[in-house]
Amino acid sequence: MLKNDLLLKALRQERVSRPPVWMMRQAGRYLPQYIELRKKYDFFTRVQTPELACEITLQPVDLIGVDAAIIFSDILVIPQAMGLTVLMEEGKGPQLPKVVATSGDVNQLNLDVEGEMKYIFDALSLTKKELNSRVPLIGFAGAPFTLLCYMVEGKSSKGFEKAKAFCFTQPELAHRLLSKITTATITYLKAQLKAGADVVQLFDSWSGLLSPDDFDQFAGRYLVQIAEAVAPHGPVILFPKGCAYALDSLSQNKSVSAIGIDWNIRPEKARTETQGRVTLQGNFDPIKLLGPIPELKKQVHKMIKAFGPQAYIANLGHGIVPGIPVDHAKAFVDAVKEYEE
Amino acid sequence: MLKNDLLLKALRQERVSRPPVWMMRQAGRYLPQYIELRKKYDFFTRVQTPELACEITLQPVDLIGVDAAIIFSDILVIPQAMGLTVLMEEGKGPQLPKVVATSGDVNQLNLDVEGEMKYIFDALSLTKKELNSRVPLIGFAGAPFTLLCYMVEGKSSKGFEKAKAFCFTQPELAHRLLSKITTATITYLKAQLKAGADVVQLFDSWSGLLSPDDFDQFAGRYLVQIAEAVAPHGPVILFPKGCAYALDSLSQNKSVSAIGIDWNIRPEKARTETQGRVTLQGNFDPIKLLGPIPELKKQVHKMIKAFGPQAYIANLGHGIVPGIPVDHAKAFVDAVKEYEE
Repeated sequence: MLKNDLLLKALRQERVSRPPVWMMRQAGRYLPQYIELRKKYDFFTRVQTPELACEITLQPVDLIGVDAAIIFSDILVIPQAMGLTVLMEEGKGPQLPKVVATSGDVNQLNLDVEGEMKYIFDALSLTKKELNSRVPLIGFAGAPFTLLCYMVEGKSSKGFEKAKAFCFTQPELAHRLLSKITTATITYLKAQLKAGADVVQLFDSWSGLLSPDDFDQFAGRYLVQIAEAVAPHGPVILFPKGCAYALDSLSQNKSVSAIGIDWNIRPEKARTETQGRVTLQGNFDPIKLLGPIPELKKQVHKMIKAFGPQAYIANLGHGIVPGIPVDHAKAFVDAVKEYEE
Repeated sequence: MLKNDLLLKALRQERVSRPPVWMMRQAGRYLPQYIELRKKYDFFTRVQTPELACEITLQPVDLIGVDAAIIFSDILVIPQAMGLTVLMEEGKGPQLPKVVATSGDVNQLNLDVEGEMKYIFDALSLTKKELNSRVPLIGFAGAPFTLLCYMVEGKSSKGFEKAKAFCFTQPELAHRLLSKITTATITYLKAQLKAGADVVQLFDSWSGLLSPDDFDQFAGRYLVQIAEAVAPHGPVILFPKGCAYALDSLSQNKSVSAIGIDWNIRPEKARTETQGRVTLQGNFDPIKLLGPIPELKKQVHKMIKAFGPQAYIANLGHGIVPGIPVDHAKAFVDAVKEYEE
């Protein structure tokens, strides 16, 4: 039994005394203890060594007091397990030297990812043990369209024009790639839940680059397919960043427990779109964490009030950024804990 | 009297036989005739030589058959006229080596921009004459928040974190900077209308990085201030990219003739938000121009049908990108011309 099960209660839409709070990318970047580890171990050593991943995952629980841990990993572990080379140099963003371009490239992708990813299941089991039932543990994966973006473009990009052109000019091949990623992701998320994750989140960081119709074609249907396959094993949070237009349709699916939103939509509007069908998560602009602490806390309370404190998970609207002072990150979490209706 | 005044009619919500069509960034990039000129003259020579700017502005009218010309220039001419150095290297994006950071930096900015920008007024007058009343001529400026982004960040950026941090941590200074940009922009747009522009558009490319509340604070109020000052001199189109949430409030202002939208919102929804109060412009995803021409034309017709052909200006949802084949750009324009209700 978890000592703090606020997150799971909020996901089940059960009444809570206050909303649970965690922060996307809470493990890493802005934490001096993480930056110390980064000096000693390169990115994939940190991800692939269960003891290190566990240590990093626990840091924000211990230091900031969040209501959930999220396993330290990366969305690109799936393309990697499927056979692509992924390079992570500090401050450069991911690089995939060999991209997916042809039918042959898609054929070659490995679907038997579970064996490749033992390290992450070990990290989850170890973290689950070390957490000692303090808070729930979140597993995650990148959503198919977002992974396609990196696999086709080969690096991060403002508009992922090449990846989108791939979808629009070779839709059949794109769907074959998306289907393979979907299959691998379902395997991966189910195994994460089995290994110790209490809930999983799908990060669709780039689907907001698509129009509503193209989202339905190339992103939404795969999100739903994954949610439906995974939901019997544990709650699923979808985070289709920049897709306010998809809130109505995604929330209609009973396999979706929660939807994360960014700050590009008013909380009240998101509630109207979802009509109480799902829990909502978000949506504080991480750059606003830089503001003076009293103002920051005032704005967090305003946000909670706008969402309403039930069926709600307080979070940022995107990952925390480097350079946020630790006391400001903590003030965000404290503000949620101090909230009174 | 203009031979083709479809654009002006659509802006006045007068009945048209078909919607007018133009493309953001239609002059440049994808046109071989432009690429030839780019080999001979650097960016600011092209912008600051009225004969060259005129030639480039006319190219898409002659080659693609658009229903409006938009003067070849750049939104960063205002920061430049205010005293900042702007470097434009091909393929690198803009660079501002000395950014605005302090109160002293804001104080130093020049407001007497009209004298600095004679070249653009000459370019407008010359283009107006060369157009020989074929189609209307559009002038433009960057919106204050978007210009602040570049002036503070010093270069393009995915999230303009530094510029947003400037707004959130030094709001008074940010407002002083935004007010100065607003004053300069009003002068600039009024002078463009006097020099020959028939209509002006304000490009707010980055205000979509703000939450609705922060948009109201740091972007929307300045858009409205400019629209109110400029509207008595000519119609004003606002293009707050990524700000679907602002359609309702911006469309309430009688000084706003049209609002441009990107592809992140369904046309039907944009109509609901604006309730017939303004003309809408947009919103084809430029990457979709790469698709096969028959499919492209089908999707353009679908878009027009979704907006409805009245009080509507067919356009892309953002600038055309390099690498779009000229016949595909022309197919976009032709599809609009072929539209039948």
